[in-house]
Amino acid sequence: MTPTPARITAVDTFDIRFPTSAELDGSDAMNPDPDYSAAYVVLRTDAGDGREGHGFAFTIGRGNDVQVAAIEALRPHVVGRPVEELCADPGSLNRDLIGDSQLRWLGPEKGVMHMAIGAVVNAVWDLAAKRAGLPLWQLLARAEPAWLVSQIDFRYIADVLGPDEALALLERGRVDADQRSARLRVRGYPAYTTSPGWLGYSDEKLARLAREAVADGFTQIKLKVGADLKDDLRRMAAARAAVGADFRIAVDANQRWNVDEAITWTRALAPYDPYWIEEPTSPDDVLGHAEIRRSVAPVKVATGEHVQNRIVFKQLLQAGAIDILQLDAARVGGVNENLAILLLAAKFSVPVCPHAGGVGLCELVQHLAMFDYVALSGTTDDRMIEYVDHLHEHFQDPVVISDGHYVAPSAPGFSAAMHPESLERYRYPDGTYWAEALPTPDPHHHDLLQRKGAAA
Amino acid sequence: MTPTPARITAVDTFDIRFPTSAELDGSDAMNPDPDYSAAYVVLRTDAGDGREGHGFAFTIGRGNDVQVAAIEALRPHVVGRPVEELCADPGSLNRDLIGDSQLRWLGPEKGVMHMAIGAVVNAVWDLAAKRAGLPLWQLLARAEPAWLVSQIDFRYIADVLGPDEALALLERGRVDADQRSARLRVRGYPAYTTSPGWLGYSDEKLARLAREAVADGFTQIKLKVGADLKDDLRRMAAARAAVGADFRIAVDANQRWNVDEAITWTRALAPYDPYWIEEPTSPDDVLGHAEIRRSVAPVKVATGEHVQNRIVFKQLLQAGAIDILQLDAARVGGVNENLAILLLAAKFSVPVCPHAGGVGLCELVQHLAMFDYVALSGTTDDRMIEYVDHLHEHFQDPVVISDGHYVAPSAPGFSAAMHPESLERYRYPDGTYWAEALPTPDPHHHDLLQRKGAAA
Repeated sequence: MTPTPARITAVDTFDIRFPTSAELDGSDAMNPDPDYSAAYVVLRTDAGDGREGHGFAFTIGRGNDVQVAAIEALRPHVVGRPVEELCADPGSLNRDLIGDSQLRWLGPEKGVMHMAIGAVVNAVWDLAAKRAGLPLWQLLARAEPAWLVSQIDFRYIADVLGPDEALALLERGRVDADQRSARLRVRGYPAYTTSPGWLGYSDEKLARLAREAVADGFTQIKLKVGADLKDDLRRMAAARAAVGADFRIAVDANQRWNVDEAITWTRALAPYDPYWIEEPTSPDDVLGHAEIRRSVAPVKVATGEHVQNRIVFKQLLQAGAIDILQLDAARVGGVNENLAILLLAAKFSVPVCPHAGGVGLCELVQHLAMFDYVALSGTTDDRMIEYVDHLHEHFQDPVVISDGHYVAPSAPGFSAAMHPESLERYRYPDGTYWAEALPTPDPHHHDLLQRKGAAA
Repeated sequence: MTPTPARITAVDTFDIRFPTSAELDGSDAMNPDPDYSAAYVVLRTDAGDGREGHGFAFTIGRGNDVQVAAIEALRPHVVGRPVEELCADPGSLNRDLIGDSQLRWLGPEKGVMHMAIGAVVNAVWDLAAKRAGLPLWQLLARAEPAWLVSQIDFRYIADVLGPDEALALLERGRVDADQRSARLRVRGYPAYTTSPGWLGYSDEKLARLAREAVADGFTQIKLKVGADLKDDLRRMAAARAAVGADFRIAVDANQRWNVDEAITWTRALAPYDPYWIEEPTSPDDVLGHAEIRRSVAPVKVATGEHVQNRIVFKQLLQAGAIDILQLDAARVGGVNENLAILLLAAKFSVPVCPHAGGVGLCELVQHLAMFDYVALSGTTDDRMIEYVDHLHEHFQDPVVISDGHYVAPSAPGFSAAMHPESLERYRYPDGTYWAEALPTPDPHHHDLLQRKGAAA
């Protein structure tokens, strides 16, 4: 009799919300008062080895319960799966989740349902990396190219990138991977920081944090723009004065503009030499981005944190609409789809500068960027990962920044796990923090004003 | 003392699911076993006039609970609003819902959250039309062009269509509207039928239903394709033989193909003279549709039922990617966004042939098509509304088809309301139908196989 293989026994979910709106951390032209949140999921098994798979979707407050409900809708696809098979082929689950014909109607492959798939799929990769005893970036960088190709869904991108070309790119990427891996462990991966540039900060705070960023060795700072042009010109002048002429400053409009406004506004900021304009308009507007890019060069155009899937990224690249691809670890369908997106970027030789910040996005996306450097693009030239310095204290394996670089993680897994105490305290609406802060335990009657009123 | 104005007092939701998978009604290449469902919402007021606003998002089974949760997340924006103000300006709510900066993160303007907005906004229009004593198509057709323009969010489409041009299109559309309105009430609006063409039907059933469709005066039939080319060729031959050479047959791949496959497959079907190929690939792939259209002409390219918002429609039109725009009443953000989409189509002179079927989509979308005819496009040439002949019995004001035409509705409202008995019977999982059919009341442990097993 063969022993019963270990299986996934539970898909536990948590509605985790941090009250970040109180400090205006994370404020921008479209998101004045976010409460950074995670629709968090834990895969449990009966393997008896104490290992769990952790993952999450990032949201900014209201609606995190909807995101949790979406993750729960995937539960029947996950519970009961044999752990070893699942970890040997996370793509099998990815295909089943994307292919659920009834759930597919709710997207397809976009928004709440797709982020839910991303959370669950990423949790599987976390478990797989823990079982392999490797940080995820290393698991990916050491994997056979053919196996990586087997993890990718080429549907709807095959006209631009198919399995054969993907294999060739991965095989090319492998050359000298060991040297880059060693170099990465010594030097880390370049980071830039958004911490100085939130829209809610005073000019003095902005200038002080900008100078600190230079001193700390970051590659670039980023300013939020788009609410008021006069303010933006003044803030950009203050930032430029603080960092000097040769330091990169990116600007980020968080989708605030129409195409024409994006062009006018970016040109107005051009005298202060912004390196890129990020999210100038709707993430859905491929043709709009292409027109903006043509019109604002040499300022570069960047987007990605809200780009819903590989199909839109494919078109942004086909249309020559972006100079910088901003990968996000928790917006699309998880590691599998991000492998496709990294390969698309590699094919078009467009540098990937991942979006991070939020809750745990730095922790996750560093693995993907490091894999990209070690085993695909082979370079960190003009590449850097966004860094924002809050909420890391809630993670068991938080990112470490040294001399403006992400230190390569060494703990097994995807760095996704939060501390149990953080889950307890910030679980909404019944965690210890919220039980105290909320005027009523009914989430449907909660809104920000009520909470603020109660807290005042 | 002025009397207290009537307000919205409740946003009640219902998870309604019909067991359509048992009969293979609605089966296609991507959706083999849909359980047609509605995430249904009722707005109640304290006006004391017995009027309610009804709306819904259409889904195909699993995940309908997620869709309901998304509608519930909008409740705080709706409850307490003064009814008269709200009905005089549904756009004010539309803007607030789309502009909720925290909920926006879950889209933006796509998928589950956006369909939830559509359900609630459509319910407001239902209430507004009831209060006006008019069917919605007439309320829209009689409205001042300037007021209609005020109902539209031009963000992200202003580079192609702004308020001034929209106003001009609406003013042009008004000319002779009364005559068209009178003609519409006599003749109705042309319909085509998808009922013969579901993938799960036998060739005999297909041919019989196709002949009936011709006899019934429909303008076109539609066949589902994309699962197996040999089958499709045989079915297309059977359908062509049944209807003769001069009758239009559309084919619908429900996103089954990559770009290359779509081109090859459509060309293979070309000898049977398909009028349009519908959803040849991902609804997100604007550039892919453009390439397919260039490659399969004179077969026309149609899409829309899964197009997430006005921004993607804008690009489909800009890129010359579609010949037919398939408006859907419940996929985008409601009537307000559909006004924008109708105007975009009018600007590009692309005919609108709405998607319908599902649960109540015929009931809703007829109003939009009739408004388009009476007060915007001014023609029904090459235009027709899809018709599918199931589930209408659950509606209080069901569509009526006469001689292959939709009869213009005359009852006040948006024809969205279901019978209370249907809500009771098909509420999931505790309605009388499901209580009997389900092996367990826990929706997380329900799947189709279990249900079928229990029913067998």
